[in-house]
Amino acid sequence: MRATIIHAPGDIRVEDRDYPTVQLPTDAVVKVTASCVCGSDLWPYRGVRPTRRPTAIGHEFIGTVESIGSGIIGLAVGDLVIAPFVISCGACPQCLNGVTVACDHLAGWGGKDDTGLSVDGGQGQAVRVPLADSTLVKVPGITEPDDALRKSLLTLSDVMATGHHAALAAKAGPGRTVVVVGDGAVGLCGVLAAKRLGAERIIAMSRHADRQAIAREFGATDIVAERGDDGVARVRELLGGVLADSVLECVGTKESMDQALNCTRPGGALGFVGVPTGGSEVPLRYLFDTNISIGGGMAPARTYIPELLADVLDGTINPGRVFDVVMPLEEAAEAYRAMDERRAIKVLLTP
Amino acid sequence: MRATIIHAPGDIRVEDRDYPTVQLPTDAVVKVTASCVCGSDLWPYRGVRPTRRPTAIGHEFIGTVESIGSGIIGLAVGDLVIAPFVISCGACPQCLNGVTVACDHLAGWGGKDDTGLSVDGGQGQAVRVPLADSTLVKVPGITEPDDALRKSLLTLSDVMATGHHAALAAKAGPGRTVVVVGDGAVGLCGVLAAKRLGAERIIAMSRHADRQAIAREFGATDIVAERGDDGVARVRELLGGVLADSVLECVGTKESMDQALNCTRPGGALGFVGVPTGGSEVPLRYLFDTNISIGGGMAPARTYIPELLADVLDGTINPGRVFDVVMPLEEAAEAYRAMDERRAIKVLLTP
Repeated sequence: MRATIIHAPGDIRVEDRDYPTVQLPTDAVVKVTASCVCGSDLWPYRGVRPTRRPTAIGHEFIGTVESIGSGIIGLAVGDLVIAPFVISCGACPQCLNGVTVACDHLAGWGGKDDTGLSVDGGQGQAVRVPLADSTLVKVPGITEPDDALRKSLLTLSDVMATGHHAALAAKAGPGRTVVVVGDGAVGLCGVLAAKRLGAERIIAMSRHADRQAIAREFGATDIVAERGDDGVARVRELLGGVLADSVLECVGTKESMDQALNCTRPGGALGFVGVPTGGSEVPLRYLFDTNISIGGGMAPARTYIPELLADVLDGTINPGRVFDVVMPLEEAAEAYRAMDERRAIKVLLTP
Repeated sequence: MRATIIHAPGDIRVEDRDYPTVQLPTDAVVKVTASCVCGSDLWPYRGVRPTRRPTAIGHEFIGTVESIGSGIIGLAVGDLVIAPFVISCGACPQCLNGVTVACDHLAGWGGKDDTGLSVDGGQGQAVRVPLADSTLVKVPGITEPDDALRKSLLTLSDVMATGHHAALAAKAGPGRTVVVVGDGAVGLCGVLAAKRLGAERIIAMSRHADRQAIAREFGATDIVAERGDDGVARVRELLGGVLADSVLECVGTKESMDQALNCTRPGGALGFVGVPTGGSEVPLRYLFDTNISIGGGMAPARTYIPELLADVLDGTINPGRVFDVVMPLEEAAEAYRAMDERRAIKVLLTP
């Protein structure tokens, strides 16, 4: 099969790999029908995180179950499934608490499972899924989604679940004012999640017309193009002299965290989901003096998928709008370039 | 009148000061009937925070209204009142959000009010209270509390409100396991607050028999005397192999924050109320990986007093038990020594 491999920063290749097979009774093999490139894939692509050896990449995919191990009870061949961005057991205390990203048997796509076997990356034609019963979520009653639904289902792997996590951590909801820092796919999904949770006033910080348009479509009531102190001043002006109750940090840099902190009112809540790239430690004394709370982190997508899926299936939300470019898997290198250069918001890859 | 003045680290004196009078229409003068020494008063006493000039000290007191300015509408001479540990206006966006500690007109006892006038410290015989209508809370129907009630009312100035803030930030409640780091008056009140909010399993970390006894009286189900990794291991053992859902950090040192973080389960909530003494910045990557949320800070005591007062008056809670020593105001220096040497949990001063 064909699969995307990162060899070094900037060096993305689509190569031949052995077609995966069931190795363990709890495995399933999934034929990928759509995968995509994540903002966090750009960290190794840009060399912000190291790539020590050629590694299968990609952690967001949907597909069709092709074969299952003897221990699988909740999936059948032919099922359409969504893969969250990590593998989890569903039975340890962390999973039972809903924190599947801290699972005692946690594993990642493109790495090793907790028995030491290799796991395929998501940007390929097929994937062996360990702990498939607890990891995958079946889409009920549908095997051939149309193009729009396929895109929205794929966002549940990561970006829509992550935006939802940020909105929850920021306590977005009725009567709360919201600022979203970051206009990538996660930030845009954060806008949609805040709207879905009932927030009425949502300010998206964005300087790109295409992203601003989707932010408005997702529920943003205001756009702030300014950054830094000017951005804070504009938020304060829009909110009648105060800062925001709920702020979603959806980037991961020191600048974005500072922007988010500075947009949060005393006693407000900051939900951060950008993978921290360093340099952005939080000043505890500032939190003490301002009563700002901080939460978030890696989203337990597996926990959130069922409720978000219900809203996708009934048309309440349409997060798939974040995919503005579709390319064949073979053009993965160009997909990375387009994301890196911000020519694309998010690229869907068709195997 | 007599008032407590800090001259330098370790140098506490009770001195003569002019008896306060109403300066502004929104002032009241309160004759102090009980004040006390706070754990945070020990930071300047120990030189952890600087004392640049002789300064009136003390920020917790109750007393009787002796005179009022012409603009006061909610208080009358003779009222028994509780003073929160900061002065707040009750009308700015921060106060309306309940975050009185970030009031636009914030001022502290022993400092200056926002018009530049000096404010008396709480450890004295009388205090001019700026913004008295919004700052003070009247105790309804009582002018001469008995000894036990007087103590409990006084805790609402700070330590009980602060313990409550920690418990709220840590999301303590029914079905949640709780660890309290710190066995000072705030930590003990944190135990009581967690119990009041419905937590059934509460672990107090303490090495002192007298404090352990009060912790148990307040609702602690378990005591852990070990610290560091041993303390974490003991918590994990008590909780059946997992860490705590809710952790209250009630000290403010790097060691106590590390202890608290390390006792919090993935996805758990850490409420911190110890005044940070430095060195304990928040490790954002750790929060990202563990999904631990952090909140708390300076407690908006003014916001919490009404609901806590109701529970004090009907006997539901008896936080005054944290006062194990009562001394005359003239012995304030000895009160500081007793607190500093941990011979006393908390000292009440009678003017």
